[in-house]
Amino acid sequence: MSQIRHALNIKREDDFAAWYQEVITAADMAEESGVRGCMVIKPWGYGIWERIQRLMDDRIKAAGVQNCYFPIFIPLRNFEREAEHVEGFAKEMAVVTHHRLISDGKGGLIPDPEAKLEEPLVVRPTSETIIGDAMARWVQSWRDLPLLTNQWANVVRWEMRTRMFLRTTEFLWQEGHTAHADRADALAETHRALEMYRACAEEDLALPVIAGEKPENERFPGAVETWSIEAMMQDGKALQAGTSHYLGTNFAHAAGIKYQDREGTEQYCHTTSWGVSTRMIGGVIMTHGDDDGLRVPPRIAPHQVVILPMLRETPEDEALLAYCEELRARLASQSAMGEPVRVLLDKSPGKAAGKRWDWVRKGAPVIIEVGPRDMAEGKVAQIRRDRLWNPDNGKPAFAFIAREDAIGAIGTLLTDIQQSLFDEARERRDANITRGVNSLAEVEAFFSGSAKFPGWVEVQWSKPTGAALEKVVETLKGTKLTIRNVPRDAAPADGACIFTGEPAVERILVARAY
Amino acid sequence: MSQIRHALNIKREDDFAAWYQEVITAADMAEESGVRGCMVIKPWGYGIWERIQRLMDDRIKAAGVQNCYFPIFIPLRNFEREAEHVEGFAKEMAVVTHHRLISDGKGGLIPDPEAKLEEPLVVRPTSETIIGDAMARWVQSWRDLPLLTNQWANVVRWEMRTRMFLRTTEFLWQEGHTAHADRADALAETHRALEMYRACAEEDLALPVIAGEKPENERFPGAVETWSIEAMMQDGKALQAGTSHYLGTNFAHAAGIKYQDREGTEQYCHTTSWGVSTRMIGGVIMTHGDDDGLRVPPRIAPHQVVILPMLRETPEDEALLAYCEELRARLASQSAMGEPVRVLLDKSPGKAAGKRWDWVRKGAPVIIEVGPRDMAEGKVAQIRRDRLWNPDNGKPAFAFIAREDAIGAIGTLLTDIQQSLFDEARERRDANITRGVNSLAEVEAFFSGSAKFPGWVEVQWSKPTGAALEKVVETLKGTKLTIRNVPRDAAPADGACIFTGEPAVERILVARAY
Repeated sequence: MSQIRHALNIKREDDFAAWYQEVITAADMAEESGVRGCMVIKPWGYGIWERIQRLMDDRIKAAGVQNCYFPIFIPLRNFEREAEHVEGFAKEMAVVTHHRLISDGKGGLIPDPEAKLEEPLVVRPTSETIIGDAMARWVQSWRDLPLLTNQWANVVRWEMRTRMFLRTTEFLWQEGHTAHADRADALAETHRALEMYRACAEEDLALPVIAGEKPENERFPGAVETWSIEAMMQDGKALQAGTSHYLGTNFAHAAGIKYQDREGTEQYCHTTSWGVSTRMIGGVIMTHGDDDGLRVPPRIAPHQVVILPMLRETPEDEALLAYCEELRARLASQSAMGEPVRVLLDKSPGKAAGKRWDWVRKGAPVIIEVGPRDMAEGKVAQIRRDRLWNPDNGKPAFAFIAREDAIGAIGTLLTDIQQSLFDEARERRDANITRGVNSLAEVEAFFSGSAKFPGWVEVQWSKPTGAALEKVVETLKGTKLTIRNVPRDAAPADGACIFTGEPAVERILVARAY
Repeated sequence: MSQIRHALNIKREDDFAAWYQEVITAADMAEESGVRGCMVIKPWGYGIWERIQRLMDDRIKAAGVQNCYFPIFIPLRNFEREAEHVEGFAKEMAVVTHHRLISDGKGGLIPDPEAKLEEPLVVRPTSETIIGDAMARWVQSWRDLPLLTNQWANVVRWEMRTRMFLRTTEFLWQEGHTAHADRADALAETHRALEMYRACAEEDLALPVIAGEKPENERFPGAVETWSIEAMMQDGKALQAGTSHYLGTNFAHAAGIKYQDREGTEQYCHTTSWGVSTRMIGGVIMTHGDDDGLRVPPRIAPHQVVILPMLRETPEDEALLAYCEELRARLASQSAMGEPVRVLLDKSPGKAAGKRWDWVRKGAPVIIEVGPRDMAEGKVAQIRRDRLWNPDNGKPAFAFIAREDAIGAIGTLLTDIQQSLFDEARERRDANITRGVNSLAEVEAFFSGSAKFPGWVEVQWSKPTGAALEKVVETLKGTKLTIRNVPRDAAPADGACIFTGEPAVERILVARAY
C-alpha cells in the first residue's frame, strides 16, 4: 500500500485553523481585501453562495415571504429608542458622519468639515429597526397580518478579530422580518424559519445540524427567544449556522407597529427575525473539506461535473474537444435532485492532470477526464471527489466506464455523493456528542483531556436565569466553553443540574464554538 | 362612445412628474424610507428587479464573466491615487469615520471619539479602485487575461436631489470590471457589454434604446471612452439606461495592474467597466406606464398571469378555487419566450373586481377572472393589460374565451404583449426624433416651441473638445439640453456643425434628460 500524497500542505489534524485558510486559498474561494476585516469573495466562493441563495430563496418564496430592499443606512434615533437592542450592537458599528471629501491641501483627501451630517448614520448591522419603521407604515389592521418580508443584503459589524467567511466586518446574508397578530402566530413563524434553515442546511449543504433554543445569555439583543441550528465542525467545535428570533412586542413598541384587531382594539404586533449568512460557507469548508481541499456538496456546487479533455496541442485536439462538447451537452441534459446537471467543459490551457488537481482542491463533485484513447473506445475516466483515493494503491480512484453509462448514471451518482457527504458528517457528529457527563468537573476533565477534537457534551441543567446563569457562563468560559442550545429533539431531563445540583429541567449542548 | 374612467388620478399629459410618483405608489413598487434619499423597494418593485437581475445575470454568465464580491468600504488612499476619478465623485460620498457609538449621557448616542478611524473609509460609489487592487494581485501574465469579473451590489452617491428609482442616495446595480492585454481587446469588451445592455433593454425590458458614445464632457471620471444606451421616456426626455466605459490604462496605472506579455515585457492592462442599475425600473415605468398605472413587459413581470376567482364567501367557493387552481397549474405548465409561465392565483380576501384594479395598476400583463358561471361554461374572462380598454364602450376589453384556448394560447399571447409594448415604444420614440435641424437657433426654437413633449433632435457637429466643447455645453444648458450620445448607427455627417459652422464629423442626439 502506497503513501497518499495529499493535495494540500497542511493536514486537518496538524493545524485545523491553518488548514482552513489553506483550503480557502487552494480552492480559490476568497482572499483578504486589504480593507480591514473585509474579504474579496472570488468566483468559486461566490458561485457557492449564489447556489445557497437560490435554494434558500426558493424556500423563502415557497413560504409566502416576499423579498424587499431596505436602506443600508440607519439613523441614530432608531437605535436610541431600542435600548436593549443597541446595547448588544453598540460596540461594533460603522458610523457615517460626513457626506463629502475635500482636498487636505497636501495631495490627500479629508472629510469636508462643511459636510458633516446633522445626524450620523449607521451602516446596518441588522435591519430590525429600519424594517420596523416600514412595518409601522404598512400594518394598520388585522387584515394586513401576517406581514412576511425578507431581504438579501450586506451588513457590517465592526469585528475586532476576523476570519474569512466565519466572522468578517462586512458579510452577506438574508434577513427575514415578519409581523403577526399574536404570540402564537409569531412563534409558529419563528419555528417555520428554523425548520427551513434545518432543511436547507441538511438537504442542500449536507450539514447535519441540531436545532434548539439558545440560552438567555446568547439571545439576540431585544429578542424574547432565540433559536439556532448548530453544526459540528471536524475539529469538534460548534458553528452557529443560522438563527431565528421571536422578538415579542419589543420592536413593535419601539417602532409603533400596531394594528386594529377584529374588535377594533389597537394591539401591538409580535415580530420575528431570522437570518443566515456567508458564514454557512465556512461551515461547508470545515465540515466537508479534507486534506485535498474542499468537497462541495452537489446541490450547492457551481459546477457539479468538470470535464477535462487531455489536449496535446496537436490537430487531433479539435476532434477531442468536439467529443467532449457533445459529452458536456448530454450530461447537462440529465437531471439530478430535480435540477439540470451543471457541467463545465474546462478548455483552459494546461495539462489535464494539472487541472485535475485544481478541481480536486476546489471540490467539484465529479471530474471526468477524456483522452484520445478514451474517445476511441467510447470510455471516460471518472473520479468522485468524495472518494478520491484508492486506498490499495494510494492513487486517485478513477473509474473507467463507458461513456453512455457515465451519462445515464450521473443523476444517481450526484444524488449519492450528496447523501454520502451528509451521512459521513452526521456519523462523525453523532459519534462526537458525549452524553452521561454528570458533573461540571467531568465536563472540565472531558475538554481538558487528551482528545484533540473532543466534540460536544450533552448535559442536564436546571435552566438558571439572571445572575445564576451568568455564573454558569463565567465558569464555562474558563474552559472556553459555551452553551450552544437546548436541542429541540433532546430526551427529557431525568437527573440533576450539573451546575446547581437542583433537579434538571432540560438538556443542553456544551461545546467550544466559532 | 363612453368616457374611460382611468385608474390613476393624474394623467401623464397633465403632470408627468406627479404621474410618475403616482404610478410607483399605485403599483405599490417603492416608497420613501425616511432615510435621506434612500427608498424602500417593495415586493412588486423588487420582484421586477429580481427578474431583470436574473435575465442580465444569465447574459453576463453566458459571456464568460464571473461574479465576485468586493468590499463596500474603500480606503481614502484608493481615491487619492486616481485624481481624475476622485474629482468626478468627490462631492458626493458617504464617509465612515468612526467604528463605535457611545451614550452622550443624555439618553442619546454619539460616535465614540475614542473609536475614530485612522483612515476614513468611503462607502463605494463605484468599485473601480477597489477591484483594481484585486486585479493587480490576480493578473501576472498574459495567460491571466482577459480577466472578466462582475458584482451585484449596492452603491451610495450622496445626491442632492433624489427621485425614486431614477436617482437615489443608495441604489442597486451590477458593475462589470475587466482587464485586457491591449486596447483592441478592451474596446471589444466595452462594445460587447454595450450590446448586452442594448439586447437586455430591448428584448427583456421592451425599452428601445440608442447605443452610442457619450461626448467628452459626459465621460465617466477617469474613462477614455464612455458609451451609453439612451431610452426616450413618454415625456420626450432621455434616460441613460446603462453605460460601458473603456478606461484605457488609467486605472491600471493607479492600481498597478500589470502583466508580462509573451515576450516577457511588463505591460499595463487596459481595463473596462460597465453597469446598469435599479434606474432601469424608472425607465420601464416612464416608457410603458399609462393613465391606469404600470404595464410590465412579460419578460420581467414577477407574475405574468394573475387569476382572480370571483369568490362570494359561500360554500360554492371551494369548487371555484379548485377549478382556478387547476387552471393555474395548467397555465404554469405552458411556456412563453423560453421560460415557464409565471402564474399567480390571487386568493386574497376582497372582491375580484376590486382586486382587478390593483393588478391593472401594478401592470400584470394578463388578468383572468373566473366566476361560477364561467366555470360551468368552461370559459374565462381575460384582459390584456396593454390593451385594457374597449374604445367603443369605454369598458375593460374582456375577452370571453374557452378555458382550453386561454391555456393553449398563453405563450403566444405573452410573446405578443412583449413585442407589442416594444413596438409601441419604438414607434413613439422614432416619431419623436427630429432630424434636419440645422442651426442652434432652430434647436432652441424647437425646444422652446409649443410641443409639450418635444422629444430629441439629431444634429451634426464638428466634435469640438476642451474649451470649445465646454462652450457648447454651456449654451445648451441654457435650454436645459444635454448631448446624449453619438448614435452608433447614425448616418454619416454630411453638413455643417450647428455650433461652430465647421464641417461636421458626426451626428449627435440632443435632448432634455433625467
